[in-house]
Amino acid sequence: MPSRELVIAFDADDTLWHNETIFEHVHLRYRDMLARYHDAATVDRTLFATEMRNLEPYGYGVKGFMLSAIETAIELSDGKISAGEIHRLIALGRDMLAHPVELLDGVAETLDALASAHSLVLITKGDLRDQERKLARSGLAHHFPRVEILSEKNESAYAAILRRHAIDPENFLMVGNSLKSDIAPVLALGGSAVHVPYPPTWAHEHAEPPRAPGRFFELASLRELPPLLTRLGH
Amino acid sequence: MPSRELVIAFDADDTLWHNETIFEHVHLRYRDMLARYHDAATVDRTLFATEMRNLEPYGYGVKGFMLSAIETAIELSDGKISAGEIHRLIALGRDMLAHPVELLDGVAETLDALASAHSLVLITKGDLRDQERKLARSGLAHHFPRVEILSEKNESAYAAILRRHAIDPENFLMVGNSLKSDIAPVLALGGSAVHVPYPPTWAHEHAEPPRAPGRFFELASLRELPPLLTRLGH
Repeated sequence: MPSRELVIAFDADDTLWHNETIFEHVHLRYRDMLARYHDAATVDRTLFATEMRNLEPYGYGVKGFMLSAIETAIELSDGKISAGEIHRLIALGRDMLAHPVELLDGVAETLDALASAHSLVLITKGDLRDQERKLARSGLAHHFPRVEILSEKNESAYAAILRRHAIDPENFLMVGNSLKSDIAPVLALGGSAVHVPYPPTWAHEHAEPPRAPGRFFELASLRELPPLLTRLGH
Repeated sequence: MPSRELVIAFDADDTLWHNETIFEHVHLRYRDMLARYHDAATVDRTLFATEMRNLEPYGYGVKGFMLSAIETAIELSDGKISAGEIHRLIALGRDMLAHPVELLDGVAETLDALASAHSLVLITKGDLRDQERKLARSGLAHHFPRVEILSEKNESAYAAILRRHAIDPENFLMVGNSLKSDIAPVLALGGSAVHVPYPPTWAHEHAEPPRAPGRFFELASLRELPPLLTRLGH
């Protein structure tokens, strides 16, 4: 029964629920705060450069973003930013962590439909506690007996998961919005991948669309996943 | 062969390597920075209160500590702390993340001695990337085929690990410096625990010594663990 064997793994942020829109909103407030020092493009470019430089020490997630935003604000204002404004930045970060989880269109129904016939896994990256809290708030936790929160979603991280759970790459399908984090490493390991683009994907996550006929698929919405699986014989 | 069955789990920070001493050093610098606003006791007490309040949103680890330290500095200075000083705080936090991993006395030899006869697991909490990096730098990673980085070390988190790895609590021994995080939840589940106190244990980790005859042991150094196991018949 091949349909029983398929393990379907889902990315979380911007695949199951909105995330980048929350960051976008904070970016707008951030540009406003620094508008008297620099134009929006300079603010964005400098913040992104700080985030990239700090990825190694901080990893992904809201807390690292907040620290990078504070550091960038101090630099761009030449130290003139006030303690009160930095306090507001910290509060803005805590608002992000407290933000309600808003599921993407069709997510709840799709997972309901898939969970009875397939093993579902959640594979995400970011702050440990933040990701756990979002999953708990999403109302989707019962669909995921296996949850993997990673510091980096690269080939060796996926290989470790497949090994640990004794999953054959041929029976592994990853669904996510990021070509770089969700699709490319899984295809490289011989697995299959479904790309469901999320409009404002973070610059760091951009990558070329892969070529892997029969193993790579692009869908406009998660709603199209069950029909795709049926078509593939699962 | 009961000795083959025993799974020995180790806490990491302040059990395998120094951690609290790094925080202590930063606390000293922090008190100095705020000395012109408040005495050391007020600084410590207020920072601790901020950390406790922020534990829910931030979780454990250096990044959350840094954000709490910035927030507290702004509050205690009534907004008079300069952007340059906040920048110094951020740099101090990055120094903590870049700090070399210093093993506690006897750790390397003890793990070498135990790894051949027992399954070893690492169970720690904190920032995902920071903990992974420390393990990589420690030179101990090859001893731990299983690594669990948790957002909270409570009874349900340990229960999930035992379930996931199909470990019987009777065959599970946890070794750590924190009565609250390493010892109490494991004893409550029916497992055994070895407490190796680390002198400057963080106030949040204090707890009453447990009563669990035959399942709870206190050692002055990890060096005493192999002889204890021999005495217990493992």
